[in-house]
Amino acid sequence: MSITQNLTISISSSSSPFLAPSNFNSRSQLSLNAKSVSICKCVATPQEAETAYKTRVSRNENMGKLQAGYLFPEIARRKSAHLLKYPDAKIISLGIGDTTEPIPEVITSALAKKSHALSTLEGYSGYGAEQGEKPLRSAIASTFYPDLGIEDDDIFVSDGAKCDISRLQIVFGSNVKMAVQDPSYPAYVDSSVIMGQTGLYQKDVQKFANIEYMRCNPENGFFPDLSSLSRPDIIFFCSPNNPTGAAATREQLVQLVRLLQVAIETSSFSKYAGFTGVRLGWTVVPKQLLFSDGFPVAKDFNRIVCTCFNGASNISQAGGLACLSPEGLKAMRGVIGFYKENTNIIVDTFDSLGFKVYGGKSAPYVWVHFPGQNSWDVFSEILEKTHVVTTPGSGFGPGGEGFVRVSAFGHRENVLEACRRFKQLYK
Amino acid sequence: MSITQNLTISISSSSSPFLAPSNFNSRSQLSLNAKSVSICKCVATPQEAETAYKTRVSRNENMGKLQAGYLFPEIARRKSAHLLKYPDAKIISLGIGDTTEPIPEVITSALAKKSHALSTLEGYSGYGAEQGEKPLRSAIASTFYPDLGIEDDDIFVSDGAKCDISRLQIVFGSNVKMAVQDPSYPAYVDSSVIMGQTGLYQKDVQKFANIEYMRCNPENGFFPDLSSLSRPDIIFFCSPNNPTGAAATREQLVQLVRLLQVAIETSSFSKYAGFTGVRLGWTVVPKQLLFSDGFPVAKDFNRIVCTCFNGASNISQAGGLACLSPEGLKAMRGVIGFYKENTNIIVDTFDSLGFKVYGGKSAPYVWVHFPGQNSWDVFSEILEKTHVVTTPGSGFGPGGEGFVRVSAFGHRENVLEACRRFKQLYK
Repeated sequence: MSITQNLTISISSSSSPFLAPSNFNSRSQLSLNAKSVSICKCVATPQEAETAYKTRVSRNENMGKLQAGYLFPEIARRKSAHLLKYPDAKIISLGIGDTTEPIPEVITSALAKKSHALSTLEGYSGYGAEQGEKPLRSAIASTFYPDLGIEDDDIFVSDGAKCDISRLQIVFGSNVKMAVQDPSYPAYVDSSVIMGQTGLYQKDVQKFANIEYMRCNPENGFFPDLSSLSRPDIIFFCSPNNPTGAAATREQLVQLVRLLQVAIETSSFSKYAGFTGVRLGWTVVPKQLLFSDGFPVAKDFNRIVCTCFNGASNISQAGGLACLSPEGLKAMRGVIGFYKENTNIIVDTFDSLGFKVYGGKSAPYVWVHFPGQNSWDVFSEILEKTHVVTTPGSGFGPGGEGFVRVSAFGHRENVLEACRRFKQLYK
Repeated sequence: MSITQNLTISISSSSSPFLAPSNFNSRSQLSLNAKSVSICKCVATPQEAETAYKTRVSRNENMGKLQAGYLFPEIARRKSAHLLKYPDAKIISLGIGDTTEPIPEVITSALAKKSHALSTLEGYSGYGAEQGEKPLRSAIASTFYPDLGIEDDDIFVSDGAKCDISRLQIVFGSNVKMAVQDPSYPAYVDSSVIMGQTGLYQKDVQKFANIEYMRCNPENGFFPDLSSLSRPDIIFFCSPNNPTGAAATREQLVQLVRLLQVAIETSSFSKYAGFTGVRLGWTVVPKQLLFSDGFPVAKDFNRIVCTCFNGASNISQAGGLACLSPEGLKAMRGVIGFYKENTNIIVDTFDSLGFKVYGGKSAPYVWVHFPGQNSWDVFSEILEKTHVVTTPGSGFGPGGEGFVRVSAFGHRENVLEACRRFKQLYK
């Protein structure tokens, strides 16, 4: 089939369950009644499968501004290549900050109980409030923000912090300027680029135009020099920081609060409860927060949540409620305490090898300094010689160059073995 | 505290689990160490709670274009007001299309099994692939798109169709023109407005500038006149349609396919399996689909999925896999068959009362015509006199004026009772 220049993209949404029976039949029988066609013909058929369909739809130029691939897929690619080279290598991953400890039973029992309840008339529930179930919003407010004037309806339950960051960027739109810690978690910058808040990528300085990168390094205690800030509209501030593991001190936070006075907070159960796969988070948007025209920010965020999201899974929310029970909180502390021991082991190891080590205090990330070296070179040498996956600091922004992030998430024996290998490499 | 004009919004992201233990302690003890402050002081404190904080951040003008509230919250508001007026009324909701039948046990057992597994070393899993787990992507491809050249990696598993519609809009950005069926599900138009694809709302015609509304009515068999189409970049086409319940015929779909040739398809388990609260869907983006510059649409969609989303809950995905087992498919057909019986009961009722009734064939929605009447007036009269909640057609676009949507989702006794009341009202 010839490539035509004037195609439109059609998005076919099958919103009805009533397709299902006939489709299941028609598909298994490969018959061609209207109902199967309604789905089948919407997608490329075998004889067309080799053809590319160039539409006349222009690519979103903001997407074109994004650089390379997302950091962690690139690391996964290099890990796979390493495995091809060393099929028998026992690779240990201290790269992506992914939880490894099982979820405490007091929490999984609640997940399972809700699952079973969904097969009963009394226990079944369909669409929930997009903002989350009242008891969970209330438990989050009282557990994390007691006596702060934060009300249940200031809490928006979500499927995770990364997703909420993008929903917040949609609320702000393209006409804001943001500031971000450098180094920082890539999603802040990438979501800003996608929303059209930035100019092009400046290769020479490795920064996007119209984003203010607030350098965080050993010299300033990994806290930005707020006095030198231009006038951004939005500041993304992450503490304890990913990747540097720096937890801001009270004095630093007071400085920040004095300058800003108001804030939106995004958090999640991912690391607290090992919910990285279960997906549950929240964002606090105090109703007192107003745009310059006096319109409440929370009202626009609520509109986005209702239009672009349909609420976190009711099963995950049942798990979140169990997390915030006295037993749940106790169980989470246990898991977190375990990871903190991992952190100490990693910090002590690099410390004993004479490296400058940062972070790792009240943070799951250890930030190791390799002055004058290229982060990816260090990453490669460590992988090549110890089969341990870390994360190159430059992947978090130009301020991360010369550093490597070591994650404390891992089974104890793996963390110990990785540290033995580090000692071999750098002894 | 005086309102200051030069405030910035700060977004504080607590990405670390290591806050938790100290926070839980400090918060319960209301102490004020750095770790608690890092969250506490980021949000309004009691003495400030009464003050509004007007920042210097301008409101996103696209958000300002959106009209009134989202349809279903408005219906919920009127339902509550009705309950205040008639505290003893037995309200029956045939409004929002929310599933009411329990999820078959073969599926909830899989949800519970995965939940329990998460508390074991062998069964625990953290971050999954943002695009979904391979076995589920594969099962979706083989169940719904056999012999169509659709490969597993063309399938993107999601937390639901509504969420995917917004992610697709983010991919396309602000410089596209979309066409949508009129009437249609509000999220298509609202997400387009939010992404800046439209002009202002034109009150006189009740349409947004730069969106092409494809009128679907009894005269054209609820299928748009494609020959009169201008040149949109994106066409959102929903079949069977929400709200009209019209399932496009094979001939109509062939017309559409001949015009467009390529398509993205979004679907979900919400109505198939009663997953409206569990949250699981998928989008098919054939890798053959290219933008005008030859760049693959799937690559940009994948980038959005990786940057703005973190995958559907691993528990929900285990449930989805069970849905597509032979037993699961059989169980889903049973539930869907039940709803189809509800539809027939509603269709027959309005039919017997002399109304022109549309939809309801292979669709869960019945579209009842009240020629010359205002949809909200009809909605109000039905609610006032029968305590039954429906959905006013004009809430789905100007093309819905004079119609009311009756949902077939409901327990049998409620559907029967609602129909008895309709017969009383219109006898």
